[in-house]
Amino acid sequence: MDPNNIQVVLVHTTHAGNIGGVARAMKNMGLTRLTLVKPRTFPAPEAEWRAASAIDVLQNARVVETVEEAIADAQFVVGTSARERRIPWPVQDARHCGERIVNQARAGESVAILFGREDRGLLNEELQLCNLHCHIPTHDAYPSLNLAMAVQILTYEIRMTELGDSIPAEQDANWDTPFATTADMTRFYTHLEETLIDIEFLDPQAPRQLMRRLRRLFNRVRLDEMELNILRGMLSETQKRLKERG
Amino acid sequence: MDPNNIQVVLVHTTHAGNIGGVARAMKNMGLTRLTLVKPRTFPAPEAEWRAASAIDVLQNARVVETVEEAIADAQFVVGTSARERRIPWPVQDARHCGERIVNQARAGESVAILFGREDRGLLNEELQLCNLHCHIPTHDAYPSLNLAMAVQILTYEIRMTELGDSIPAEQDANWDTPFATTADMTRFYTHLEETLIDIEFLDPQAPRQLMRRLRRLFNRVRLDEMELNILRGMLSETQKRLKERG
Repeated sequence: MDPNNIQVVLVHTTHAGNIGGVARAMKNMGLTRLTLVKPRTFPAPEAEWRAASAIDVLQNARVVETVEEAIADAQFVVGTSARERRIPWPVQDARHCGERIVNQARAGESVAILFGREDRGLLNEELQLCNLHCHIPTHDAYPSLNLAMAVQILTYEIRMTELGDSIPAEQDANWDTPFATTADMTRFYTHLEETLIDIEFLDPQAPRQLMRRLRRLFNRVRLDEMELNILRGMLSETQKRLKERG
Repeated sequence: MDPNNIQVVLVHTTHAGNIGGVARAMKNMGLTRLTLVKPRTFPAPEAEWRAASAIDVLQNARVVETVEEAIADAQFVVGTSARERRIPWPVQDARHCGERIVNQARAGESVAILFGREDRGLLNEELQLCNLHCHIPTHDAYPSLNLAMAVQILTYEIRMTELGDSIPAEQDANWDTPFATTADMTRFYTHLEETLIDIEFLDPQAPRQLMRRLRRLFNRVRLDEMELNILRGMLSETQKRLKERG
């Protein structure tokens, strides 16, 4: 996907700090095209400070007078909206919007994502310029997201879609040592049982569920070879010290 | 899910504004338990301003001196980490972490999520206190997320899981024994280290990475209370036999 196919459009932003926060949120997720519709204060030191190393996104931002001008060449327009609207519109949550946006951008379309004012969001007439409305499901106790946070969540969803299957969901993906085999584990359990008898923790006449619990524990964790060597080493040293002193 | 089962822990936060941003991000997603480990400036007007209507989250925040104190009663600890570490640890992306956190909290467990310093994140020894590391897949061009943004993404994923209607059955939900707390685990590691010195497996003058590897192993498995008692019993018996025969 060409990230230039996606532009973030901020409409009538009041706090310059939020513009900087948005720039950083975008670049963190691989997006750089920012358009500002009539920001109250821009450029501003507060924006630059919050943008940190995304200062280039600010410097390249396009400043325009109207929403219509901002989205003139867009082929797919998404509006973010917290509030219920009187006119029903196609609405999807941020996850599905992220997928939709990436699909359109991959197809070579120009996509614009509109974010409204800090206090009132997008106006009805602005929302009506959109193909799709995006809803981020916040909690009723405090539904109003900070502007840069809303951008962060939607750009994060865009990035998650883009990465698709390339995210290793499995914790084992980059493990540094091979995992132990079943045969290794069998030898370990034998050694462990022997040692527990040596230290008089396990009574072979009344073993109860001790070994069963220990097997469950170590099978659950999946030992790697180095860990297994450490544990075997501990058992061997214990046996050696007992013999020396016995 | 009882949202009180999840606490967000900020470690050595430098900018008070970020603390406010975190409070708002949490409340927007339905979470309210915030713990601050040695914040540089708190309370602070900048925090209150950024918190907006989440001022109650700030007012109820617990301030402590150490990470250990913050997570003493936690049963499942997640650490957020941007950087590659020398010793791999179980890592999952924010989405899978969100699912895992909700599942543990639904099972009635106390979950802590650690977020590190603005400049350096969590230290290695802090990451080693965790059961799971969480990675947010940012873009290489600018991988460093703002602190409040990282909290927003993870709490958003927690909320998305909570709202989802099809949650995969969690193996821990029907576990027969409560899981050990962080304070229990700290005592166990101290006892383990002592015993390893007693059996001359660990040389205090040249400890290498032994304890770190053992911590990773036992944090990965998440010991329940009975398992912990078994292991403590093994250590005690080993020490006793050595003394008898020494």
